[in-house]
Amino acid sequence: MLINGVPENRIGIQDRGLLYGDGVFRTLCVEQGRPLHWAHHYRKLHQDCAALDLPCPEAALLAAELGQLSVRQPDGIAKIIITRGTGERGYAPPASPAPVRILSISPSPVFPEAYRKQGVRLRLCDLHLSHQPRLAGIKHLNRLENVLAAAEWRDPDIAEGLLLDMDGNVIEGTRSNLFLVRNGILFTPDLSRCGVAGVQRERVMRYASSHSMACTTGCFTLDDVLAADEVFLVNSVIGLWPVCQLQGRNWSHYPVSHQIAEWLSHESTD
Amino acid sequence: MLINGVPENRIGIQDRGLLYGDGVFRTLCVEQGRPLHWAHHYRKLHQDCAALDLPCPEAALLAAELGQLSVRQPDGIAKIIITRGTGERGYAPPASPAPVRILSISPSPVFPEAYRKQGVRLRLCDLHLSHQPRLAGIKHLNRLENVLAAAEWRDPDIAEGLLLDMDGNVIEGTRSNLFLVRNGILFTPDLSRCGVAGVQRERVMRYASSHSMACTTGCFTLDDVLAADEVFLVNSVIGLWPVCQLQGRNWSHYPVSHQIAEWLSHESTD
Repeated sequence: MLINGVPENRIGIQDRGLLYGDGVFRTLCVEQGRPLHWAHHYRKLHQDCAALDLPCPEAALLAAELGQLSVRQPDGIAKIIITRGTGERGYAPPASPAPVRILSISPSPVFPEAYRKQGVRLRLCDLHLSHQPRLAGIKHLNRLENVLAAAEWRDPDIAEGLLLDMDGNVIEGTRSNLFLVRNGILFTPDLSRCGVAGVQRERVMRYASSHSMACTTGCFTLDDVLAADEVFLVNSVIGLWPVCQLQGRNWSHYPVSHQIAEWLSHESTD
Repeated sequence: MLINGVPENRIGIQDRGLLYGDGVFRTLCVEQGRPLHWAHHYRKLHQDCAALDLPCPEAALLAAELGQLSVRQPDGIAKIIITRGTGERGYAPPASPAPVRILSISPSPVFPEAYRKQGVRLRLCDLHLSHQPRLAGIKHLNRLENVLAAAEWRDPDIAEGLLLDMDGNVIEGTRSNLFLVRNGILFTPDLSRCGVAGVQRERVMRYASSHSMACTTGCFTLDDVLAADEVFLVNSVIGLWPVCQLQGRNWSHYPVSHQIAEWLSHESTD
């Protein structure tokens, strides 16, 4: 682990990342020392920092530090956290923040191979996401909603939880973005009021655009999900998982999902 | 500073308090080595931990550790943070969390004496609070809304910002609770959908009850605030500040506010 470039695994308790969740983060795969889809991840990190008026470290600096960490751990999951660092007492951010960057690479989790091929069971979460347009889309450190949602089940056969918003619109998984396929068209929830707009979601939308496949962003209900021909989840760690079960509805054929999964895993990794 | 009873000022970067804001906190005054209104603060800490299904350290343990810190700093502002500690990768909380307690006492901030006597200028924040009943009332570590709101102004003559919710209801200050006085009756916003229900708010409500003063909790608009005879803010660090200005409306007489302020500062401190 590196904190501001120095091997270190602890941060000061006055850091605003701890005190207020005042920061953003990224989770991405590193393969043979190479951070996958780095340009996408850095662009998103930069956007998220900008949304919180947080200076973002240079891409070259972060890439060099990831390279340093990957000497010991060439394959794994990299996490990059940028906090606003320390400041005076109170919520108001310092006029000239000195952001803190925390980088680590840990071993990749192992998921059953069936998740990619036969799909995963999804549960509907009781927690409904709140609407906060000022924070929507950003992968910030205020993740208590995700924690509460993920605490709702312990059944290891359920791979992910589906989150609706306060109005009953489908938004995302607790740690993944969601797509529906119907009549060959892709649909994904609008994330302008809540949710995290992940890099793999963006890549799927780019896939659609480059393959003349319509992809519509909008408001969808649980009924829309249950009526879909295919439903799939994406994030940078899991890749793409088709959904095989939700609320008594079963799916077993995933032609579009598998086609997109193939493209996602083979497309240029930069 | 003490972390789990050990003099230490840094925590591990795997702590869920940093990763997800998965924890709660308290801020309270210490005078001559004595934490003020400790029973109230501990009860609220316990409630907040319970709301997040987080085991709360024993009151005696926390009090003893505050006592230890106050040997060096007998007067100041104590902060108690309880995080869910470390766990496996991901949002799901560990089945048996080992919470981390972080205690510190820092010097009291100095506010102009006029704030208590002549009142403070309040600004209306652009940020609107989101509705999340599962987190409402809790003083948790997900405080980005407060950070964004507090970032809206730098004018030192404005002491606090007023927050509305998404429906336009008045909720609280960025770091204080709000009361209105009209025709001798107290009003304070309902906090069941957003906001932090502070200990001093609870004490003011107890004051009202023990002084046969009506105190109504409900939904109030900005117009209700502007139509009030008096408006005041409370928290454990500032005590009570009457509001002298908001949106062009001025106040200058605070008989009820001053009477409550007197009681709050002299009532038994336990």
